[in-house]
Amino acid sequence: MNEAGPLPQYLVQRYHGWRATAFLENRVWYRRLAEDGQHPRAMVIACCDSRVHVTSIFGADTGEFFIHRNIANLVPPYAPDGQQHGTSAAVEYAVNTLKVAHLVVLGHTNCGGVQGCHAMCSGHAPALEEKTSFVGRWMDILRPGYERVAGLPPERQIRALEHQAVLVSLENLLTFPFVKNAVASGDLSLHGVLHDIAEGTLQQYDNQVDGFVPVV
Amino acid sequence: MNEAGPLPQYLVQRYHGWRATAFLENRVWYRRLAEDGQHPRAMVIACCDSRVHVTSIFGADTGEFFIHRNIANLVPPYAPDGQQHGTSAAVEYAVNTLKVAHLVVLGHTNCGGVQGCHAMCSGHAPALEEKTSFVGRWMDILRPGYERVAGLPPERQIRALEHQAVLVSLENLLTFPFVKNAVASGDLSLHGVLHDIAEGTLQQYDNQVDGFVPVV
Amino acid sequence: MNEAGPLPQYLVQRYHGWRATAFLENRVWYRRLAEDGQHPRAMVIACCDSRVHVTSIFGADTGEFFIHRNIANLVPPYAPDGQQHGTSAAVEYAVNTLKVAHLVVLGHTNCGGVQGCHAMCSGHAPALEEKTSFVGRWMDILRPGYERVAGLPPERQIRALEHQAVLVSLENLLTFPFVKNAVASGDLSLHGVLHDIAEGTLQQYDNQVDGFVPVV
Amino acid sequence: MNEAGPLPQYLVQRYHGWRATAFLENRVWYRRLAEDGQHPRAMVIACCDSRVHVTSIFGADTGEFFIHRNIANLVPPYAPDGQQHGTSAAVEYAVNTLKVAHLVVLGHTNCGGVQGCHAMCSGHAPALEEKTSFVGRWMDILRPGYERVAGLPPERQIRALEHQAVLVSLENLLTFPFVKNAVASGDLSLHGVLHDIAEGTLQQYDNQVDGFVPVV
Repeated sequence: MNEAGPLPQYLVQRYHGWRATAFLENRVWYRRLAEDGQHPRAMVIACCDSRVHVTSIFGADTGEFFIHRNIANLVPPYAPDGQQHGTSAAVEYAVNTLKVAHLVVLGHTNCGGVQGCHAMCSGHAPALEEKTSFVGRWMDILRPGYERVAGLPPERQIRALEHQAVLVSLENLLTFPFVKNAVASGDLSLHGVLHDIAEGTLQQYDNQVDGFVPVV
Repeated sequence: MNEAGPLPQYLVQRYHGWRATAFLENRVWYRRLAEDGQHPRAMVIACCDSRVHVTSIFGADTGEFFIHRNIANLVPPYAPDGQQHGTSAAVEYAVNTLKVAHLVVLGHTNCGGVQGCHAMCSGHAPALEEKTSFVGRWMDILRPGYERVAGLPPERQIRALEHQAVLVSLENLLTFPFVKNAVASGDLSLHGVLHDIAEGTLQQYDNQVDGFVPVV
Repeated sequence: MNEAGPLPQYLVQRYHGWRATAFLENRVWYRRLAEDGQHPRAMVIACCDSRVHVTSIFGADTGEFFIHRNIANLVPPYAPDGQQHGTSAAVEYAVNTLKVAHLVVLGHTNCGGVQGCHAMCSGHAPALEEKTSFVGRWMDILRPGYERVAGLPPERQIRALEHQAVLVSLENLLTFPFVKNAVASGDLSLHGVLHDIAEGTLQQYDNQVDGFVPVV
Repeated sequence: MNEAGPLPQYLVQRYHGWRATAFLENRVWYRRLAEDGQHPRAMVIACCDSRVHVTSIFGADTGEFFIHRNIANLVPPYAPDGQQHGTSAAVEYAVNTLKVAHLVVLGHTNCGGVQGCHAMCSGHAPALEEKTSFVGRWMDILRPGYERVAGLPPERQIRALEHQAVLVSLENLLTFPFVKNAVASGDLSLHGVLHDIAEGTLQQYDNQVDGFVPVV
């Protein structure tokens, strides 16, 4: 027995509409997915932010992307300490079990998590520094990124920290032995992307210039 | 400098197609979302599984759902221990900062995480019991659910455990003081849903029968 | 020993460009495709016409579509006579071995094969009626379609015959027992589409109106 | 009236994206192609395999290649018997009507059709030997190629048969009088290419060494 109640009617109505159209038009494919299991070609790590519509941006059909979403699309460093690490579990499952070919870290502009991290690290958000703040402790993962941008002109720090949220995650991914090995053996490729919500554009990390360039 | 490389061209092509259609047709709304920030009406906690297309099932537009996705849509118990808890951070941000009205835990059939948990708890997956298994330690969250279904006929245990993945998460959500208070004050409603991938149907938890019933 | 010579340099140059970009950016996926084999979700039967760019229209990545292309996207009736039937072999392989979920017959406007069939059936192309004309004999498959449009005003017959090239193929597909069974069991869905080359639009067969309607 | 249903929505979405970008940016060219008809400079005979992306490998724009795709990129011998020969019809149309300058037979590694032919000819696939097997009867075209490789060490036979699928087709092409004449008069050049899916490389037949050499 718990507190859960029925779905609001507008969601029920949309679900019936989805089932009568997208599902029925594609039901053969859905049954195949259920019987054969998923074989996604890529894992995407994105923010929970409601403005980041991963499958829409990339025209992905059901079954194409294995998607983990957390605050600020962060990946913590490898820490096999027996504790619960939801992000590390998702990466482990995607790389070792599903053997995805691509792992995309998808950041975005106007990220509340990044803004909170900036406020916390610059001493303007004492509440986030409290031990009991889950958001604060989660954003600690991005502190090394803050250190790299703290010297920039203030007006440039937030955008730079949004880029760092992608770069720090990419760096931490390589601290996982199974990720490092899969990349070294050519079984996995990593990608770092930043989505500009207002402009609808994408930038991606280019390791030749060691920076972000527009996706063209 | 890191290992990340450019996106595959088929994703670049689809992104350009998205920008020229969905984005441009809706750019006023995207601009608004960027300037005013997000105001999602619901948080959805779903599985990373590529076959669970949250926004499609519920016809959600960009900006509607704050979405956290992890292995088996699990929520751990409240543990303000100063460690990194990505799921707890997402729930805290959704409830305390975004003040969402609905929190939906969306489970699904054919869940690899649930099947792994069943194998582990029934002694058939020693590798998942190792301290270094991120998936194994993450699925420990569902062990209390396994205890409840272990006495059922074997052929019914997996489906029952899929239901437990939703119920255990709902129960753990109520161990968070800010969730319990928001529910008590009528500011937040919880919902437990199971999506059948092959049939395209939804079941939801009904607290009057203390079980799952079809969404009609 | 035969007459074959080296590829023209412009094709060699483009191949090197493709390998240095699209291939290398996606090489993990290509290796996976080679090792695991193909698992396309759809078969497309299209015309050989150089103006029909199947993968581009549908943003299909390598590995997504099993594609058979012949003159006028025709499927002959089921004829297990021990002769060589390339189209029937492709359909058999897609449905029985690959078990694709969707089979799309993609016709197009301005089809030279359809125009030739119309000229032949209306008595204006004696050369195509000769036993030795491979194109003529191949277009015999569409003769039943011509009979249905012969009574229309002349200016409407060609477009109607382009539609028939899709419809006759769909009808012939259902004469194959394994296609009929797969459709009946819900393991395969058929789709009939006409692509307008000049307008860049698609029409699809709608069995509720028993005609073609714009894809919107 | 038939069984065909609407396209899955993810394909519809991608089509709209294609039309708003690739098509509209190039609509003058598409209009020209529709009004003036196609004038492709080459015909490509490739396999239906979803992993062979002909236009991508050669950077072909809409209108450049007249493409016939069948199982294992095979061309049967000249047989003007009044039966339906889809491949012969495509070759006849490309050489006599479109007067293409190049005819490329594009084979590939990991070909299921070639593997099936090898199993059948070596007595390991009785089902393919049945009169009613369309794939088996189609692969009979490659039997002469199997005879040439049957004496090789087993581990080399498949790759050798993949080469034969190209060579036998080139040889059969020259049994067509109109092909032989076009080649003799210098109006048509033939090319034999093998695409390695895992490596992304091309080999082409070199008649000076009577074998395949890397395309450099």
